[in-house]
Amino acid sequence: MQTSQQQSEFIDRRGFVQTAGLLSVAGMTGQSVFNAQAAEGRKDAEDSASKLIVHGKFPMNAEPHLSDLVESWLTPVEHFYIRSHAPVPKIDVKKFRLSIEGLVDKPFEISLDELAQEFKQASTIATMCCAGNRRIEHHHVKPVKGVLWKEGPLGNAKWGGVKLSDLLKKAGLRENAKHVWFEGSDIMRRGSVTYPFGASIPIEKALLDTDSTPGALVVTHMNDKPLEPDHGYPLRTVVPGYIGARSVKWLGKIVVSDRPSPNHYVATAYKLVEDGDDLEWAEKGPIYRLPINSAICTPSHDATVKAGTVRVTGYALPPGRAATTIAKVEISTNGGRSWIKAKLTSPAREYCWQLWSAEVSATAATKQLIVRATDSNGKTQPQRVDWNAKGYMFNAWHSVGVNVKS
Amino acid sequence: MQTSQQQSEFIDRRGFVQTAGLLSVAGMTGQSVFNAQAAEGRKDAEDSASKLIVHGKFPMNAEPHLSDLVESWLTPVEHFYIRSHAPVPKIDVKKFRLSIEGLVDKPFEISLDELAQEFKQASTIATMCCAGNRRIEHHHVKPVKGVLWKEGPLGNAKWGGVKLSDLLKKAGLRENAKHVWFEGSDIMRRGSVTYPFGASIPIEKALLDTDSTPGALVVTHMNDKPLEPDHGYPLRTVVPGYIGARSVKWLGKIVVSDRPSPNHYVATAYKLVEDGDDLEWAEKGPIYRLPINSAICTPSHDATVKAGTVRVTGYALPPGRAATTIAKVEISTNGGRSWIKAKLTSPAREYCWQLWSAEVSATAATKQLIVRATDSNGKTQPQRVDWNAKGYMFNAWHSVGVNVKS
Repeated sequence: MQTSQQQSEFIDRRGFVQTAGLLSVAGMTGQSVFNAQAAEGRKDAEDSASKLIVHGKFPMNAEPHLSDLVESWLTPVEHFYIRSHAPVPKIDVKKFRLSIEGLVDKPFEISLDELAQEFKQASTIATMCCAGNRRIEHHHVKPVKGVLWKEGPLGNAKWGGVKLSDLLKKAGLRENAKHVWFEGSDIMRRGSVTYPFGASIPIEKALLDTDSTPGALVVTHMNDKPLEPDHGYPLRTVVPGYIGARSVKWLGKIVVSDRPSPNHYVATAYKLVEDGDDLEWAEKGPIYRLPINSAICTPSHDATVKAGTVRVTGYALPPGRAATTIAKVEISTNGGRSWIKAKLTSPAREYCWQLWSAEVSATAATKQLIVRATDSNGKTQPQRVDWNAKGYMFNAWHSVGVNVKS
Repeated sequence: MQTSQQQSEFIDRRGFVQTAGLLSVAGMTGQSVFNAQAAEGRKDAEDSASKLIVHGKFPMNAEPHLSDLVESWLTPVEHFYIRSHAPVPKIDVKKFRLSIEGLVDKPFEISLDELAQEFKQASTIATMCCAGNRRIEHHHVKPVKGVLWKEGPLGNAKWGGVKLSDLLKKAGLRENAKHVWFEGSDIMRRGSVTYPFGASIPIEKALLDTDSTPGALVVTHMNDKPLEPDHGYPLRTVVPGYIGARSVKWLGKIVVSDRPSPNHYVATAYKLVEDGDDLEWAEKGPIYRLPINSAICTPSHDATVKAGTVRVTGYALPPGRAATTIAKVEISTNGGRSWIKAKLTSPAREYCWQLWSAEVSATAATKQLIVRATDSNGKTQPQRVDWNAKGYMFNAWHSVGVNVKS
């Protein structure tokens, strides 16, 4: 467990803040900024947290209010969920080197300046979403451990940096390269054992490069600004379409391997298990792709609304499958017996959510609004999903109760 | 592709048969029986095939008629499905040695005689079931490749041999032992490339040993008789609760490893994929546990039955989860609006199917009979299942059309 003493390491004196504020990752030079940006970011995150629902501060885990979330297709950082497994690490960006190693011909280390100068800049828009989105709904079926996320741990951003595939090409992949591991600079502590957060993705994903979306980016910028500490400053991966846990913050090392990472968060977490015994953990593979999902953001749960026409808004997320978008969002006011089509109000892009709105007719008999989405391959959100011990991937029809007043 | 010339290797002269017939695996001594039992077995299989629906002879793939299958809880070999990926291999049982190697302190090779003499005999009853059971129902949604199995590729047998865990204990597992690979003596050919059929299971499964069921057996006997060639003579693995593909026939080698087998049938087959592209294959883990399932065996599809009371029979298979049995089997004559409880007519054992029968009332309006099963953890077969490219794990409610005549 984190203590407030540990946490205090990350709340440094404000004297650093002016300095840190002047830096941009793409062009950082000169001064020693050990922990300065982290300190700035901690302050920023605390400011942001005032606009978020905070589940825990040590480490920081927080999600936006749904009425904020649904305001814009590109999510501003202040409304962007924060998912951390450990405190923001102290990184001396001047000394920092990203390491690329493993099954490559020419392993190398690279500074942030070199990264910005030697590689072509690339950007993409993609929705980051926690595998535990809507965990609370699994929890209501049967208790699960973990942060009890509601419908808010996701956000859509423009991510800027360099293509992972460009780094791998420079290193030169060996023939048996099958998975790419990411290792963070953050440190988990379990008793006396410490280890970094880690992830891995199949080489096919790492090398994917469609017209609109690279398979994965090594990212320095979020919505055209340097990453904030809580979002991985100075460097993170972004893997469009995959659960957020595969997009590793505070990236320090990339390892090419013939197998998935043995890191705890690949080998023994982020799996769909029911029993939760060692055998079932060993049987199950890591989860990667996000499932299709949707949620009603307004009205909020158990809101009182006036009888007559009610405006309903929310988001719909296509599954993490190439070239797949949301085709249809439907609302039901009668428990799913009939459905009204919502209007999609934002761009349709693979790996990106879409916002929607609908006008539905509510009477005193209306107790609940339900949403379900269908993707461009004709696949619809399921009505129910199986419970799993870690509460991942909840993507059944979403509903909110309403009190209709005449 | 197999040719009839290749196949002719396995149809040897009958002169061998008397000799082969005298052998028992547990006590084989003396004469050279190169291929004799295989030849005998080929003849046996062809005899058996007369009682099976043959999907292909080269290699042999066949399933029983459902009216035969449902006749007894322990399935006689003549009604037991045959699933082969390659022709029955020629094995000289006198020279044969099973090899145990990999992450063990004392790798060893062992003859069949030694296996029978040095290890405690063990047996268990378990239902073997192909991952492709009911593939035809996926195929009707959207075509899939592979043998178009109906509801028959499963059977319940008593398996005798030695515990895999005893072999592993003798070899001495190293600390990083995490998976156990099985390699068959059969040879797949893809163009100029050849490789054996293979599988692997997590070490936790290999070492499992409940009161009623060992985690896995290395088997010489089926229903108290030596294995027939089509069922893996002289040696196979049986992994209760797992898809049939993990129970490797003609077992030649056991390898202890820190990861799942790289064999084609673990690394790039027997996975649930939708797109079927390289990325999705890489993302998905191997399938192991059988899902809950059930089927109506009589009346047969589109049978004509007399109005009034109709007797319905079939099987129900619990999921491949320890200590889990079938709790309830239900029949609907009205599309699932209401259900009638069937009577379970055979023993309830983990990893074993149960047979059931029900008397339902049929009228001219009855067009279809539906069955669904619920396990002892309260989990019911789903009404629908997602299609997958290889047509595995079909376990939705099962139905047969009926023509009711007054």
